[in-house]
Order: sequence, then C-alpha cells, then structure tokens
Amino acid sequence: MQKHFDISEFTPITPTAPISVGAHGGRAKCLQRLIRLDLPVPRTVALSFSAVRSIAAGQDPDTAALLAEFGEGPLISVRPSSEDPDWGGPGAILNIGMNDAQHKTLAHKLGQPAADALYLRFIQAYAVHVARLDPDMFELPQTSDRSAIDMMLHDFESEMEEPFPQDPARQLADVLRSMARAWEGPSARLLRQGKGAPADAGLGLVVQEMAIGVGNSGIGECGSGVIQFVDGDTGLPQITGRYLSQSQGREALVAEEGAIYLTRDGRGPSLEELCPEVFEDLKRYGDLSRARLREEMQIEFTIEAGNLYVLDAVRVARTARAGVRIAVALAASGIIPEAEAVLRVEPRALSELLHRQVDPADRRTAVIARGIAASPGAATGRLVFSSRAAQTAAAREEPCILVRRETTPGDVRGMHASVGVLTEKGGVTSHAAVIARGLGLPCVVGASSLAIDRRKRTLTAEDGRIFHEGDTVTLDGTTGVVREGAARLLEPALDDAFRTLLSWADELRDIGVRANADTPAEAKVARAFDAEGIGLCRTEHMFFDENRLSVMREMIFTDSPEDRAAALDRLLPMQRADFRELFEIMRGLPVCIRLLDPPLHEFLPQSRDGLHDLAEALDLPVSKVTARVEALSEFNPMLGMRGVRLGIAVPEIYDMQARAIFEATVEAGQSVTPEVMLPLVSARREVELVKARIDAVAAAVKAETGADFDYRLGVMVETPRAALRAEEIAPHSAFLSFGTNDLTQMTYGLSRDDAGRFMGAYVSQGVFVEDPFLRLDVEGVGELLTVGAERGRRGHPDIVLSVCGEHGGDPDSIAFCRAAGFDYVSCSPFRVPLARLAAAQLAIRDHALIR
Amino acid sequence: MQKHFDISEFTPITPTAPISVGAHGGRAKCLQRLIRLDLPVPRTVALSFSAVRSIAAGQDPDTAALLAEFGEGPLISVRPSSEDPDWGGPGAILNIGMNDAQHKTLAHKLGQPAADALYLRFIQAYAVHVARLDPDMFELPQTSDRSAIDMMLHDFESEMEEPFPQDPARQLADVLRSMARAWEGPSARLLRQGKGAPADAGLGLVVQEMAIGVGNSGIGECGSGVIQFVDGDTGLPQITGRYLSQSQGREALVAEEGAIYLTRDGRGPSLEELCPEVFEDLKRYGDLSRARLREEMQIEFTIEAGNLYVLDAVRVARTARAGVRIAVALAASGIIPEAEAVLRVEPRALSELLHRQVDPADRRTAVIARGIAASPGAATGRLVFSSRAAQTAAAREEPCILVRRETTPGDVRGMHASVGVLTEKGGVTSHAAVIARGLGLPCVVGASSLAIDRRKRTLTAEDGRIFHEGDTVTLDGTTGVVREGAARLLEPALDDAFRTLLSWADELRDIGVRANADTPAEAKVARAFDAEGIGLCRTEHMFFDENRLSVMREMIFTDSPEDRAAALDRLLPMQRADFRELFEIMRGLPVCIRLLDPPLHEFLPQSRDGLHDLAEALDLPVSKVTARVEALSEFNPMLGMRGVRLGIAVPEIYDMQARAIFEATVEAGQSVTPEVMLPLVSARREVELVKARIDAVAAAVKAETGADFDYRLGVMVETPRAALRAEEIAPHSAFLSFGTNDLTQMTYGLSRDDAGRFMGAYVSQGVFVEDPFLRLDVEGVGELLTVGAERGRRGHPDIVLSVCGEHGGDPDSIAFCRAAGFDYVSCSPFRVPLARLAAAQLAIRDHALIR
Repeated sequence: MQKHFDISEFTPITPTAPISVGAHGGRAKCLQRLIRLDLPVPRTVALSFSAVRSIAAGQDPDTAALLAEFGEGPLISVRPSSEDPDWGGPGAILNIGMNDAQHKTLAHKLGQPAADALYLRFIQAYAVHVARLDPDMFELPQTSDRSAIDMMLHDFESEMEEPFPQDPARQLADVLRSMARAWEGPSARLLRQGKGAPADAGLGLVVQEMAIGVGNSGIGECGSGVIQFVDGDTGLPQITGRYLSQSQGREALVAEEGAIYLTRDGRGPSLEELCPEVFEDLKRYGDLSRARLREEMQIEFTIEAGNLYVLDAVRVARTARAGVRIAVALAASGIIPEAEAVLRVEPRALSELLHRQVDPADRRTAVIARGIAASPGAATGRLVFSSRAAQTAAAREEPCILVRRETTPGDVRGMHASVGVLTEKGGVTSHAAVIARGLGLPCVVGASSLAIDRRKRTLTAEDGRIFHEGDTVTLDGTTGVVREGAARLLEPALDDAFRTLLSWADELRDIGVRANADTPAEAKVARAFDAEGIGLCRTEHMFFDENRLSVMREMIFTDSPEDRAAALDRLLPMQRADFRELFEIMRGLPVCIRLLDPPLHEFLPQSRDGLHDLAEALDLPVSKVTARVEALSEFNPMLGMRGVRLGIAVPEIYDMQARAIFEATVEAGQSVTPEVMLPLVSARREVELVKARIDAVAAAVKAETGADFDYRLGVMVETPRAALRAEEIAPHSAFLSFGTNDLTQMTYGLSRDDAGRFMGAYVSQGVFVEDPFLRLDVEGVGELLTVGAERGRRGHPDIVLSVCGEHGGDPDSIAFCRAAGFDYVSCSPFRVPLARLAAAQLAIRDHALIR
Repeated sequence: MQKHFDISEFTPITPTAPISVGAHGGRAKCLQRLIRLDLPVPRTVALSFSAVRSIAAGQDPDTAALLAEFGEGPLISVRPSSEDPDWGGPGAILNIGMNDAQHKTLAHKLGQPAADALYLRFIQAYAVHVARLDPDMFELPQTSDRSAIDMMLHDFESEMEEPFPQDPARQLADVLRSMARAWEGPSARLLRQGKGAPADAGLGLVVQEMAIGVGNSGIGECGSGVIQFVDGDTGLPQITGRYLSQSQGREALVAEEGAIYLTRDGRGPSLEELCPEVFEDLKRYGDLSRARLREEMQIEFTIEAGNLYVLDAVRVARTARAGVRIAVALAASGIIPEAEAVLRVEPRALSELLHRQVDPADRRTAVIARGIAASPGAATGRLVFSSRAAQTAAAREEPCILVRRETTPGDVRGMHASVGVLTEKGGVTSHAAVIARGLGLPCVVGASSLAIDRRKRTLTAEDGRIFHEGDTVTLDGTTGVVREGAARLLEPALDDAFRTLLSWADELRDIGVRANADTPAEAKVARAFDAEGIGLCRTEHMFFDENRLSVMREMIFTDSPEDRAAALDRLLPMQRADFRELFEIMRGLPVCIRLLDPPLHEFLPQSRDGLHDLAEALDLPVSKVTARVEALSEFNPMLGMRGVRLGIAVPEIYDMQARAIFEATVEAGQSVTPEVMLPLVSARREVELVKARIDAVAAAVKAETGADFDYRLGVMVETPRAALRAEEIAPHSAFLSFGTNDLTQMTYGLSRDDAGRFMGAYVSQGVFVEDPFLRLDVEGVGELLTVGAERGRRGHPDIVLSVCGEHGGDPDSIAFCRAAGFDYVSCSPFRVPLARLAAAQLAIRDHALIR
C-alpha cells in the first residue's frame, strides 16, 4: 500500500507556521502562542483535521518522515487537539519510541529504574489504548525491573501473536491510527454532539518531544506539575496546583500520592523551596500568558534534569462566580476591553450567582424526589403540605418547604411564607414555577414519582420511604432534586465584580429590561437588580389576602351594580395602598399595572368545607352559594370569562382598580406616570369601551383632587387575534406588551398547566425542537410577534412594544425581540441580570464592538 | 311663501315615463309595468324621493298643479312607494278631494248613502292620520247620514279651531306633508333600519285617481278585492283572495265581514258567478303579470259601476316552501332561467323545509323556557333528565326531550334516543348544539332561566311552575322556545320542487359540499341530501357504546404498550365494522375520518358511583382508579392532551384505527379511497411521526390481505400555528381541512363552551360584530385561513383545501372559502342543502350568470 502523507498535513509548530484552531485544533494553536511568547515548549508538530481524517479512513501515515522532524531517537507524546476542548478526545499517549534499544540508552542516561519505568509504562499504554488488550492483564507491577518488562512483553506477544513492535515509526503509526479511529467511534461522537459539536467536528493531534520527568537524582530534579494563578472556585488571585517529583503527565498528578504544594506557605514542602528559579519562571510565564493570551491559564510543565519545559496550557476551569471575577479583573487591568469581559460570561450561568446553591461537595444524602428544575437556588426547610401550615411555620420563623400537587393563586401567600416549593404536577411555566421565579424561590415541579397524601400530611419518596410534615429536606431548584436532611449551601455572589460587569453591560445594551413584579418584595428585588421599571404587575395576587378575599367574594355574590360598587369601595383603599407602595419603591420608574385577569371563580372555594364557610360568612343558603360557584365554573378557564371580558361584563372592578391607580399616583406625586394594561384583548372595541371608562375615572380623580397627572393605557397582546388586528388596536393604545405565555398557549392550542405530562416526551422525540414555553417559538409565535409589532407600528408609529411573558428572560428570545425592534423585555426580577447581560452581548455582537 | 314644486319631481306614470325603483320606489315602478301591460290602471302620478324629502323639509308642494293632472273634480288616493316594500311606510289615504261640493255631486251620481260614507271616511282619515286627532273621537258612526257628517265636522272644528278644509289642493298638501314627515319619524326609521334599510332610504308616493267601489245598485256592481293565483303557504297553483261589494281598499277586506270567495267552488257566493267577465279578465291579468313581471303577483282591484280597475299589484307573500315551488315553477315554465330560480330562494330559509315546524297558528300554550335556537325543527315529547332515561323511553318507542345542564360525549347515545334536546348552558357551538345539528335534532341551548333539579328530575319554568319527568312539552329549535304540551307540527317539505331547485344549484355550483357525519344515520342523511362525501367523520362517538366504553377504559388503565394493544385489538373489529358501514352507505364517495381527538379522561367516569363501578369492573382498588382519573384530568382540556398529541403519546390507538380503516377499505372493495385526518396538529414533526406509523399499518394490511388500495392522509388545521406553518406541513399532507371551531377558539382565546355566558352581551354591545362561532370572523380567523391556504399550496401545489368547522354551512363563510380557492366545505348533514344553494348563488353572482 502506498504511504500517503501530504506534507501540508503535518506542520512543525513555529511562531510563523500556518496553524489555526479551525484546521489543527485549540491545543495546537495554544502551543503556537506559547512558543511565540518564547516559553520553553519542546519541539511539537501539529497534524491537521484532514490528516487525522485520512488516517481514520485507512491511509497509512508516513511516520518515518514525521519522526525525522524530531531528530535522533527521542521519545515523543501524542495528544488530541479538537476545535473546542470541551468536545473531549482520546487520551494522550506518552513515551512513544520506547523499545529495547532506547531502554538500554536511557538506563545509561537516567538510571535503570527510570528506564524500566518508562518502558513498562509505554508497553502498558500501547497494549491497553492502542492494541485494546485487557487492562487487567497489563497493570503496572509493584516493582519495575527487567523481569517485569519481559513478562509484559511476553503477555503482549501471546495475546497479539506477534512481538511488541520495536520500530518507533510503526509505534507512532499505530498510535495515530488508534486515536484517529477512537474519535470516529459512535460513543465519542454522541458525547461531543451532546456538548454542541457539529457532526463533522475534526480532531487534530499534536506530536511532541517528551520532556522526561524521571531520572536518577544525579542529573538534577525531575518531575511534572500544573500551576494556575487564580482560584477556580472564587476567581480570586491565588497560586494553586501540584508538583510531583519523578512523574510524567497530568494523570500522574491526580493518581499518585506524594505531590507537593507549589508555594511556600507552611503547609508542607513546596516547589518554591525545591526549585526557586523554576518557580519564578513559572510565575513569569503565568503573567506573560495572562497578558498575551488574555486569559487565566493553567500551565502544565515538566522539570527534566533541573530544566523547565512547558508542555501545554489550558484555560483555567472555573465556576460561574469565578468566571465573572476573572473577566472583570482582566478588563480592569486593561488586558481585555470591557465589552469583551461582558461577552465572556454566559448569561444563563448568572443564575448560579443569584441564589444559594447546594455545595457540590455535599451531595451525600438520599434523593427523595426528582422533578423539573423550575426556579434556581437551594433551600433547606421542614416539609409543610398547605399554605396555612407554611404561614404558621413562617410566623414561628421556621424555614419550610411547601409541598402541593399543584399550586393555585390561593397558594401565593403560602409560597411567600416558604423557602422552597415542590409540586407533583406542572411544567416550567406552571403556576408554581412562574410565581416561584418571580419570588426568587427555589422550586421543583412535575416530581411525578412522589405520592402526596394531604390528609395524612405525608410524602412517599421514589424509594418508598415516607416523610412527614416537619421532616427536614433540601430542595435544589437548580438541578430539580430534593434530598433528605440539610445539605451545606453556598451563599449568593452578588459582589462587586458582578455589579461592575452588569454596569458595563448596561452601557452597551440597546434594549430595555424591566421586571415582572407583583409585590413590594419583588419590586425591591427588581430595583436591586437595576430593572428599568416594572413591565408587568399582576394585580390578582393582591386579592388573596384574607380580609380582601372575603370582600372579593362578597362582591361576586352581589346582584346589582350598586352593591358591587359598594363592595369594591371597601377594596379601594387597600388597592390604593398597594400601588402607592409600588410607586414609592420604584421611585419614578415606570410601573405597568395589568388590570384583573383571572376568572372570578378562582376567588371562590371549591371544597365542601370552603363552600359551607362561605355560605355562613355571606349569610346565604349553602345551595345558593354552591349554585353560584357551579355557574361560574368553566370547562376551559384559560379561554373563558377573564381578562378584559371581565372588565366589560363587570366594569365596576376595573373602575375601582383605575381609581386606586390614579389616587395612588396623586399621593405619590408628580414623578409617576402609571401604565394601565388590559389583558386578553381580542378586538378593538374591547379597548375602546374600557378606555372610555378609565378615561372617565381619570377625569373624576383629577377633578376631585385638583391634581394633574398623565397615564398610559395599553394592551397585553395574548391572543393570536390581537396580534393579527394590532393595526386597528394600536391607535387606542400607548403600548402593546406581548404576553408570550398565553400567546404560546393559544398559538399551539396547548395549556401550559397540562402540557407538563407530555412535553418531556415531545421534546425528546423532537416533535417540538424545544419547549415553547421555555424558548420562544420563533417560527409560529414569533411570526405573530413580528406581525403584531409591524401592524401595531403601522397603526400608531410611536407605540411602545415589549414582551412581558416568561420569555422576556431568555437570551434567544431577547435576541428575537431586539431584532424585531421591541423597546423592552420584562422578566422575573431574578432574571433581570441575565437579561441585561444577554441584551448587552447582542448589541456587542451586532455592532461588532468586539472582533 | 313661494310654492316650490319642481316639475321633474312629479311624474305622470305612462309606459315611457322615466320611473325607476331607485327614484320613485317599487310601487310606482310596478304600476308602470302594469300600465305597459295595458291593465286598466287609473291615472297615477309618481312623486320622487327627493320631492317627498323636500316636502318633509318644509317646502309647500304645488298641489294645484298636481291636481290639474287629474282633470276636473276627481277623488284621489295617496300610497307610499319605498324602494323595498318590506321597509314599510305610512298608510294609504283615500278619497282626497271629498268636501261639501263633492258630497253633493256624488250623492247625485252614486246615491246618498255612498256619498255620506265616502265623506265620513275621509273626514275620519284626515282627522286621525293627517291632523293626528284622537282616533276614539273619530270612530265611524253606525249609521251614515248628514247629521253624522255634521257632527264629525263640528268635532273637527272644535278640536282644530278651524273648519274642515274644503280645498282639495289644501287637503292633498296636508296629506303629502303628513306622510312625508311620518317617514322621517324616529320610530319609522328604526323599524325600517331593522329590516336592512339604509339610513338615507327614500320614500316615494303615488297619487292615484280613485276607482270608487261604492254606489247604488242602479249603476252596476261596485266593490273591491284582491286576487292571487298560487297558495302562499304551499306555492301550489290556486286562485285565492276575497271580494267585498260596496267597499274600498285593502284594509276594508280584512276588517269587514261579508267578503265573498272568488271562484265557484260550492263554498258560497263567488265573484266568478257575480261578474264572470271581470273574473275572466282578472285571470288573464294574472297570467300576463306572471309572464311579464316574472313573478307571482297579488292584484288589488276595484269594480266601479261594473268596470274593473287594477289599483296595484304586489309580490305574493309566501312561506319558504311556497317560495321554492314558485321559483321552480316559474323556471319550469320558461318564464325565468333556472339560475334565477336558484337565486330567488334565501338559503337560510331552506332549513324551514328540512324540519318539522310548529304550526304558526298553534302557538297557544305557555312558554316554559326560552333559550338559543341551536338546531332547527320542532318536536313534541316527554321530559327526561338523563341519557339513560332517554334510552329507556326510546326502547318503549316513547318520544322524549332530553334536558341537561350541558351535554358531554357521554350523552350522545341519549341524544340519539331523543326527539329534542334542551340545555341550560352553552351557546350555538356548544357540544349539544353541534351534535344536535349533526343529528338534525331540534335543540335549544343556554336556557338559563330554567332551574333543573337532576335528583328530583324536575324543571322549574321561568314562571315558577314545576315540570316533572314524563310531562309532555314541545321544543322549537327554530325559535328557541319550549312550550307546555303538544303543539300541532307541520311536516318537512322535501318535495320535487326542492330537489329540482338543488339539482339546478349543483349544476351551477363551483365549490364542493360535503357533510360532517359520524354515524350511519348521519351518513344516510348526507347521501339523501346529495353531499359529495363525508368531510369530517369524528370517531370518538364510536367509543361510547357500552361494551366499547368498558374496553376503552380497560385500555386506559393498562400499563404497557402490549396490554394496550391487546385491549385495542378487541375494539378493532367493531371499528372496522363502523367504517365498512360508512363506506357502504357512501358508495365510493370520499370519507374523511378524523382519528381520535378528545382527551382520554372524557372516557372515564367522574361521579363517585361511576368510579366505584369502574374499580369493580377493572378489579382495581377504588383509590387507584380515582388517582388515575385525577391524574388524567386537565385544567383546560381544550388545550390539553388530545388530538395528535394522544396519537404520539399512545400510538397504539391510531394504529388500531388506521388498521380498522384499511381493513374496512379492503372489505368494501376497490372503489373506496379513505381519507385519514390528524386533529390538533401544531408542528410538522407530529405529522411525520404519525404518518410513518400509519404508512406502516397500510403496508401491513396490504401484505396480509394481498389487496391494494390507496389512502390519503391529511391534517386538520385547528391551531393558529398549523395555519402559520402550513407550508412545511403541506408536503406531508394530501389535504388541509380547517377546523374553524377550534381555530376560532384559539385565535380569540375563547372557549365555545364557556363563551355562552357573555356572548349575547358582547354582540349586543357591539364588542364582537357577530358571534364568531356562528359567522366566520373574516378579519382574524379568516386571515389565518387565507394564510394557511396560500402557504399550504406553496408547500404542496395540488393540496386539497377545505373547511369542516360549523362555519361550513354558513353562506357568508362559504363565500369566504370560495374566494380563497377552497375545494370544498363540509357541514352538518342538515345544512348541506343550504350550503349547496348558497354556493350556487355565489357562482351565479360571480360569473354574472344573471344580470
């Protein structure tokens, strides 16, 4: 067979050689950079992706020519070099070239034990990783000597029916072929595609002359190590790493005992003491690589007979919080521009900084339940099975985890009183999930393996064990796991670096970010995270307070508009106080208040006891109360008598809310311009009718108080029809805010509360590319957004456009809204930092502020 | 004041005078046509709309000039002539010109009693209708003589403080002014606008010389009458009408006794005997006007001293069934083209022919309930309060009316067993309404004034009376009224004329009409009404049969795909027989079968007893059954786990259904090409996944049977997303059928089952122009239809497009679909004739086949 090895496919790495990440992989390119910095990198040759591909396809590499690059009889190593280090690759093979002759030569040079060890290690590596023989058969012997070598050579020969190859060119060819084919294997392929590698991702290889970290003490210090200059967990400057005398390669450092510290800090022997010059050199190399490679690098090095060699350098592995601090530090010291620091932090990783996390080192206790990670963060508390119990626990200042089959608006107060929420049903946009994210409360939903017994107040875990009310558990909303007992938690990291990074992001960002906030607590979080206002304040939760709920129910049972207005008059001062507090917290920032949205039956009890209590409270016969509750019940509440339909059928409710808003505006002073939003609009006339009444309320409040104020009335676009008819709706609206949750439900004909049961299977079967409640469905719902935006602008050129659904916090959805020319997005307060960062990154990329 | 009367504004009617309906009204134009036919019409002058308008505005008409048209001293009448006779108008005023002088002259000519009567009548008419005096004061006296006249003149003078006007020109001016102003009054305006008149509809007036139907016997026969040549109820040829000697005007005929028959048929004295020549002339005039006016006319005539005068002719008033027969007869005798006959019948009126009707003469008994007229027709039967009771009654062959709060799929068998359905809840597209229309069953829904007590099996009427199970009532689904007891019913009129008209319509029609039919009974109706196939066969009803339901429930409770398939295997032969029967009834016409659509929980019991029975039947603990039922329950079933989602989650169901369809196809022979339709699609991949499985089932059936057959798989477009993504869905679909019910629900975010509560108020407040479930919402849903059709064709140029929602039977919606290039519409079997006729009319108008 003709040996084929195109000269262009192996490239000695020199400062000027044509090496690129896209052709030779990241490791090859990084080594070239180190060489350019004059670091003592041993001679290295890069094999391109196409060379490795042709080897995998069966072509024999001309390894003799390759070896000639390294001169006479050196040992060499081969390491993988894929485009992205995360995509994995075959393990490194060291000491290629060891054979009987080298064994003799090195015994002379390094001493017999070192030579024996090197030969044994190579035979083992070759047998297991290249010839694919049984690893158990080729374990390294306790003592390395000639007889051990002979035994291993004999084992090899009897397994392979040929002697161990002595020709270095043959050895190298076998290693290259083995590594090339491993890359093409189906499991390696699946693994890297899972990490985002394209189907045709290539593998490069780097062939490097060995710096040999073993040898008798006479020739000087020998060994290998790694060093880095920041802490990967905190991102703070700190020299960390390990060094092991008489060792080779990264694996040895992990596997073997006897490694020493690097710095002289009193904990034990250190490299700084052992080889002060080498240590100084390493520190210098660290500074150099940080400054010139513009990144915190971990350096892999070998000391051969007292001489330092740098074999490789990789980006320091880091937690999200370390990532933020490193990026900010690099920009602060002028190494990278601020915009690049902003680009370097993955927005989704920020949530790790905003919430408590279970310490990764403390995941010992048994898993009670697994579900959908619906709201990030971790919390430890006692199990409670009702909102009332949660409130009781909160009153005793006992942290509790609320467990429900699913939550309803009636549970919101109980959720407020809990440190975490666990539900058996529901998906990522179920009621529990949405509210929990709003509250920044850790939440796991859809834990369908649980069995909850509300009467006995027990929870049966997936392993059959039963937990009672009061038992302590740790809920991890970041991973969707609930564990027994209390785990060690890491605190949030809202440090200076975090704030600095986001302030840079804000300077670069060109789309607004508001928060969805219903309560003063949420509004305070929104302000703390520098939201530019409230984009969605849902008012329904305000009516679940016990004394308000009873008035609300009374109102529902009135028979005339006058009685209705009288009942609502009693709610007015409470609503006014709600809004005034929000206006004061937001200090002049816009607050967009959505008028009452849910169907009235959500305010009524469903249980037998609840109906009896209500009948007693209202002094009505139970039968009448039951009949009214039944009459108000709906087959499909999502598509029922709610939103603006309620505003038209029972106009006194919106009248009262509008009055509360305007009176609160007057009380709060001139700086407030409230925004009033109508939910579930599907026809222009709905807006006209409600607008006329609200304008009248505004005029009345102005006349009564003598104060003047502005307000803006707008429409929440949640039905496909509102999007399609935006042109005729817009002239009556100061703004259109797209409620992408409901819009997604209606565009797909899919209830978010019911979809949990099959969404997982649907996404895994590829029926939906992604859960459309998590990631905006650009093709379907997205078209309604662009159509609605375009027509809205046609009907009203100055109209303000925004998204206030859950998607407001998703980077891809933000990208979509930005491209469609929206003015702002609004999301859960705890997603505001993420949205600010994501929006800034879009602006940077779009305006080519970097690269 | 200057008298103003432009000569162009009064026009003596001659064969060549410039008279038009648009300027002078229908009566004036009709009189000109009669004059052109040489009928003995007294001299007549037409006043144009603009003339009447200027009189109403206060200008004085030059009545002296007008009177000059009539020569010396005649009496004249004034009658209204609006553009459309339905728009009403002021009553005619006769005998203008009567005064003391005329009184003397006529006493000489006609005899004293006749002259007295004419004077008295004119004074009365003038006092009441022109001077607007109290009618009670001006009742006609028992005896007409000079003293009676003097008394009436005295009363007039004392009321008006001026003597009764003697000047005919003054009299005429007053009459014209009074009639012109009456037309402009607000109540007349509202009344005619309710009948479709535009805001600026004009009134013309015709001024005609009186033929005087009174006079002493010496001068010859005097009297007046009306005659027509068809029966207005049946449309069959028959001379009908009345004649009254010594009378004047149409009102006299109705009011006074003593009228005689027209033909000699032995019932009593007749005009034919009294004045044989006049009678022959009238018959001749009837033939002439039918042939030349191309319509069946009622002729108003007067005999003055033995001479016949034709005063007027109007279109014969007719029922819907008479209308069909008249139109067909006119076309059959070559008077009008067939296309015009097709145009002359209002499609919506057809439903009167298809169903039993309450005889309009028999609406005596008390109203028990009023609701929404949801499915036309009338039925008498005994009240039952459960589907089971309905089936028991049916087994005893006792007609029964099923009363429910609302119906569910479990009630369909009970509906089959009933002659009518009454529900307390729901709107025109509620379950009860849709199913009832499909069955051709009279149905009233949303009768919210009812109180139903299911336990006591009683119904409390709006007047408080209580009715029990077994009480007889009559339900009128055409008017939405339920009455006590049995009313007289008229039978349907599916006669030859009806069939002939529709066969003409079919020749002209250019869009297909299929029927929605789920059962053999419905399929037979569909065939009887010449539907071109079944456009929607819902399969869920097939599973509610008692023995099928138990297997279905067993299937739902299986835990493995194998057990599921085994349970479904037992349903297979039943489904196969269902489909085979449908194929055989439809004899080669296409049958489009929608695979199972509703969520599985609809097949499970909800009541405590039902759950216990089920647990026993399945040999499972009640707690497990209850838990499963609860687990399957949904917040918004409409947006839940149904349609193709079920087909993907539980693929064995669709496998079984596909196999049943294909095996039935083989059994039924080569002529059948079944169509298989996937419900609730929202993404392309859903179609791909299900199509792959169904193709595999088809291949298996072909291999097993050795038979070959074709089938077509298509998609029901019910979600906005399916319409938006039609281009990528279409390549996998032989057809797209738009399910406009669900599409409307999702586009509006509006559940048809829940909308009943406020739809009435919404439409009456003009929030929605019309109920979008009744009339296709062209602006919103319609855009999704056109977008879906256009994109569907782009993705698959030969794709077949149709509508199979309730709108398929609505003429306006058919017009929309035809304009959008749809291939066919599919509607309830009983609406098929309506759709065929409406579609033909659209083609005729579009292609200008007529006018």
